[in-house]
Amino acid sequence: MSNETREHIRDWWRTDIVNVEDGNIRYRGYAIEDLIGNVSLVETIWLLLRGELPDPKQARLLEATMVASVNAGPMSPSCAIAAMAITCGVGLNNAIASGINALGDTHGGAGQQVMERLLLIRDSDGTDMHAKVATHLEQFFEEGGRFLPGFGHRFHSVDPRAQRLLELIDEATADGVVQGEYAKMVRAMEAELTRRKGRNIPVNVDGAFAAVLAELGFAAPLARGIFVLARAAGLLAHAVESQTEGRRIKGPVPDDIMYTYSGHAPRALPGAQ
Amino acid sequence: MSNETREHIRDWWRTDIVNVEDGNIRYRGYAIEDLIGNVSLVETIWLLLRGELPDPKQARLLEATMVASVNAGPMSPSCAIAAMAITCGVGLNNAIASGINALGDTHGGAGQQVMERLLLIRDSDGTDMHAKVATHLEQFFEEGGRFLPGFGHRFHSVDPRAQRLLELIDEATADGVVQGEYAKMVRAMEAELTRRKGRNIPVNVDGAFAAVLAELGFAAPLARGIFVLARAAGLLAHAVESQTEGRRIKGPVPDDIMYTYSGHAPRALPGAQ
Amino acid sequence: MSNETREHIRDWWRTDIVNVEDGNIRYRGYAIEDLIGNVSLVETIWLLLRGELPDPKQARLLEATMVASVNAGPMSPSCAIAAMAITCGVGLNNAIASGINALGDTHGGAGQQVMERLLLIRDSDGTDMHAKVATHLEQFFEEGGRFLPGFGHRFHSVDPRAQRLLELIDEATADGVVQGEYAKMVRAMEAELTRRKGRNIPVNVDGAFAAVLAELGFAAPLARGIFVLARAAGLLAHAVESQTEGRRIKGPVPDDIMYTYSGHAPRALPGAQ
Amino acid sequence: MSNETREHIRDWWRTDIVNVEDGNIRYRGYAIEDLIGNVSLVETIWLLLRGELPDPKQARLLEATMVASVNAGPMSPSCAIAAMAITCGVGLNNAIASGINALGDTHGGAGQQVMERLLLIRDSDGTDMHAKVATHLEQFFEEGGRFLPGFGHRFHSVDPRAQRLLELIDEATADGVVQGEYAKMVRAMEAELTRRKGRNIPVNVDGAFAAVLAELGFAAPLARGIFVLARAAGLLAHAVESQTEGRRIKGPVPDDIMYTYSGHAPRALPGAQ
Repeated sequence: MSNETREHIRDWWRTDIVNVEDGNIRYRGYAIEDLIGNVSLVETIWLLLRGELPDPKQARLLEATMVASVNAGPMSPSCAIAAMAITCGVGLNNAIASGINALGDTHGGAGQQVMERLLLIRDSDGTDMHAKVATHLEQFFEEGGRFLPGFGHRFHSVDPRAQRLLELIDEATADGVVQGEYAKMVRAMEAELTRRKGRNIPVNVDGAFAAVLAELGFAAPLARGIFVLARAAGLLAHAVESQTEGRRIKGPVPDDIMYTYSGHAPRALPGAQ
Repeated sequence: MSNETREHIRDWWRTDIVNVEDGNIRYRGYAIEDLIGNVSLVETIWLLLRGELPDPKQARLLEATMVASVNAGPMSPSCAIAAMAITCGVGLNNAIASGINALGDTHGGAGQQVMERLLLIRDSDGTDMHAKVATHLEQFFEEGGRFLPGFGHRFHSVDPRAQRLLELIDEATADGVVQGEYAKMVRAMEAELTRRKGRNIPVNVDGAFAAVLAELGFAAPLARGIFVLARAAGLLAHAVESQTEGRRIKGPVPDDIMYTYSGHAPRALPGAQ
Repeated sequence: MSNETREHIRDWWRTDIVNVEDGNIRYRGYAIEDLIGNVSLVETIWLLLRGELPDPKQARLLEATMVASVNAGPMSPSCAIAAMAITCGVGLNNAIASGINALGDTHGGAGQQVMERLLLIRDSDGTDMHAKVATHLEQFFEEGGRFLPGFGHRFHSVDPRAQRLLELIDEATADGVVQGEYAKMVRAMEAELTRRKGRNIPVNVDGAFAAVLAELGFAAPLARGIFVLARAAGLLAHAVESQTEGRRIKGPVPDDIMYTYSGHAPRALPGAQ
Repeated sequence: MSNETREHIRDWWRTDIVNVEDGNIRYRGYAIEDLIGNVSLVETIWLLLRGELPDPKQARLLEATMVASVNAGPMSPSCAIAAMAITCGVGLNNAIASGINALGDTHGGAGQQVMERLLLIRDSDGTDMHAKVATHLEQFFEEGGRFLPGFGHRFHSVDPRAQRLLELIDEATADGVVQGEYAKMVRAMEAELTRRKGRNIPVNVDGAFAAVLAELGFAAPLARGIFVLARAAGLLAHAVESQTEGRRIKGPVPDDIMYTYSGHAPRALPGAQ
C-alpha cells in the first residue's frame, strides 16, 4: 500500500462523532460512562447528530415526535415488508433492514419534503408569513400540484398525532424553548388550503413532524433520518409478532394472482417439445 | 379472489400491536395522543414489544443499555458500511438499512447469544449458581470453546460501558426493580474465567447488555432487536457525517488491492484476439 | 496508521478473483476483452466462482437451472417485496436488494438444504444408493420430520421445471458431461417417499436444482448464491412492472386490518388528557 | 375484508410477467419447460423485461455487456460491502443484497445517466448528429459541468471493456442487428471532449454500456436494472471468497481511526461521576 493510499484511507475514515481507545469511549467529547444512566436515548441521538446535548425541554419535543412516528400499522409497506421478511428465514436485523430500506421518497420522505417546503417559504420574499404561504400555495397549484405533502390523510379526517404535536409546540413556545414560527406556518397553510378547497384539509403527522424538527433547528435530511430511527421500533414489533405467531412464508399475498398477459402467440422455440 | 384466500389474507395480517381507524390510533390499547408527550421513546418501544408500559425505573435501565449500544466507531462494520453506502448516491434510509443488514450473528448477535447462555445456566441442574457457572464453563472449554462471548475485548482492557451497566443493575436491585441474579451470574462468570485463564477477562458490553435484558425479562431474540434500534442511531450519525463531509465513493478501501491469482495459464478462448 | 494496520488492511482485501490495473482487467487470469463477446454470462459466473471456465455443456446445464429459477410469481415473498418497495420511492437497485434480502433459509435456501442432504446421503455408510436413501428417510421421519425439502409442492401436482431439469441431467449423463448419480438419488427419494406416503410426492424444482448443482460439483452454499443471481432477474421484472403501471404505495395489503388486541384496560397515564 | 379492498388487492397484484397454475408456469406466454434448456439466461431476462424473446444476435450483444459489468474489484464499494457483510454472520443472500443496495445514483447509476443523455441528444433540435453533440457539450460545460459521465476513467487511460463493446456494436451494425447510431454518438462525444480538453478522454465502460442498451431499445431505467443483475455475480464471488478465506469481522477498516472532535469542553452532566 502506497503512502498516498494510506493517508487517503486514514483521512476518509476520520470522525468527529466517536472516539474509541483502550478503556475509553467518547461520544462528541462525553465519556460514555457519564452518559449511560444520565441522559436519555433521544438526548444521545441529538448529541450524535448535533454535536451537543439538548436542553431537556428540547429533547422532550423530539421524543414526542419520535413516539408519534413509531408505527402506522401493517398497511404501511415498511411494516408489511418487515412482517413478511421474517417469515422467509432471515435474522431480525435483516427483517428490520428490509422495512427501513422501503422508507424512500414516497414512504418515509414526506417529513423531509414538508420541512424543505417550510424552509423555502420562510426564505421567500416578503415580510408577512401569511402572504408568503398564500403565494407559495398559489404557485404550487398553478404548477399542477394536487396533494400538498403534510396535509390531509387517506384514513384520518383529523390526525390525532398532528393535533397533539402542535399542542406540544405551543407549550414549548410558551416556555421559550422554541419560537413557534413553523407551527404558525403549518396552521396558516392548513387555513389557506381549506379556504381554497372549500373543505377541511388538516395538518397530518408529516406536517407536524416537519414543524417540530424545523422548530428544533434540524437540517431537513435529518427529518428522514429521525423518522427512520423511530419507525425501526414499529418494524421490530411487527417482525417479532410475525415470528412469534409462527406465520408462514405463503399467505400475505393472494395466491390466485390475476395473469393479464395478452400478447401474441409465443414464437415456436427451436428446441421446444 | 376466493373466499378462502380472502380469509387467509385477513388472518395473516391481523395484529395485536396497533389499531388504526379514522382519527384514532392505538398502540396496544393506548390512544396515541395520550402517549405523545407523556411517555418516552424507550417506554413506547417497551409497550410495543411487551404489551404494557414499563415502570419508569425499568425503562431507565433499558434506556441506559440502549445509550451504551449506540455507537462503536467506524471500525465496526455496520458503521463502516453506512458511511460507505451514503457516498454511493442512495437515500439515508438505504444507508441505515445497509448497516443494520450487517448486524448478523457475528456482529450484532453477541447480546442474544450471551442471553441464551445466561438462561441456559439458570435452567441447568443444581441449586448453587456459582457451581452451575463453573460446570457450564468447564463444559464450554472441554468442547473446544475458546472465546466466551460477552467477556474480554479486543480494544478495552476494562470496558467502561459494562462496568456502568452493572452498577445500574445494582442500583435497580437495591430499589427492588430487578432481582439482580444475572448481574451476579455474569460476575461469577468473569471470576471463573479469570481464575481459569490466570488473567483478568472482564465482562464486556455484550455481557452486561445481556444481563440487563435478562433482568428485565426480555426474550433472548429481543436482545438483538433492541441492539439494532440503538445502533441505528449511530449508523445515521456516521452516514450524515459522511454526506456532510462530501466524501467520495472511492477511498475507504485501498486502491492498490493485492491480486493473488496464481492459477494456470488461462485456456485459449476460441474467439479471443 | 501503524504499519501493522496497513499490512492487516492490505491482507484483508487481497483477492484471487479480479485484477484491475491501468487499461487491464482480468477475471481469474483472463483478460476481460477476451471474455466479452466470447463467453456467456453464465460461463463468466462459473469462472468467477470456480476459478476456471466450464465446458460449454456444463454451462448449458447451469444455464437451464438458472432459467428455471428466475421467477415464481408475486405470491413469492421476494417478488412481492420488490414490487412493493419500488412504489415507496427507492431506486431499482434498492427494490431488487429488498427482494434478495428475503431469500433466507425458508425462502431461497431450499436448494442449499436439499444439496446438503444429497451430499450427506452420498457420504453415509453403505454401498447401495437405494438402501442409503431408504435409511436416511426412515431416520428423517422417525426424528419427526414431516415435509422433505425438495419434494412435493403446494401448487403443482407435477412441477414442470423439475421434470425438465432431470431430463437435461439425463442427456448430459448420456453425453458424459456429468455422472448422473444425483438425478438417480432424487428419483430414488421420490420413489421411497411415494411408497411411504401412499401417494405421489414428486421431485420439485428445489430438488432438481440441487441435483444439477451437485452433478456440476458446486459447493452447497453456492446453491443459494446461484439461485439469488437467477431470481434477481424476476425481481427486476416485477419492480419495473410495478413502476411502469404507476402502482401506489398503498394497496398491496388490506387496509381493514383486524386488530386483535384484547389486553387489560390500559393504565391511566399521568399526563394523559 | 370489504369487497372493495378485495378488488383493490386483486388489481394491485395482477401481472403480465408470469402465470403460475397447477403444473403450469408461463413466462410471458411461454411454457417454462420449453424455455429451460432452449434459451439462455440472458434471453430469459430479455423476455421478462421486454415481453418477447430477442434475436440471438441481440442477445449476444446484451450478454457481452453484462459480462463486461460483472466485476470491478474490491475498491468498488458494492464489492467491498458484500465482502465485509458476509463476515458479520449473515446469509449469502443478505451479503449480496447489501452490495446491490449500494448501487445508487453515484455507483451503479452511471449507465442510466449516460443513456438518458444519449436519448436527450438524439431528441434535441437539429439534423446533424455531430452538431447536436457539440451543442450539448457546449451547454454542459457552460452550466458548470466538469466530468461527463461515461467518459474518462480514474484508473484506465483506455478502458478495455469500452473498446471491446464498441467493436461488438460495429459488428452487430454490419450484421443489421442494430443501427449503430449510439456507437457513433459516443465516439463523436469522445472526439469533441478530447478536442475541448486537449487530451484524450476516451469512452469508458459506462458510456459503452449505455450505447449498447440504447442500440437494443431498452428504456433508460433498465440500464441500472441490468447492471445490477450482472454485478450481482461479482458480489457473490467476493462474498464467497471472503467466507472461504475465513476473514474476520474486524480488519477491513483501520482500527486507529483519527478522532477529529474539537468542540467545547463538554457540559457537566448532573448525574455524572
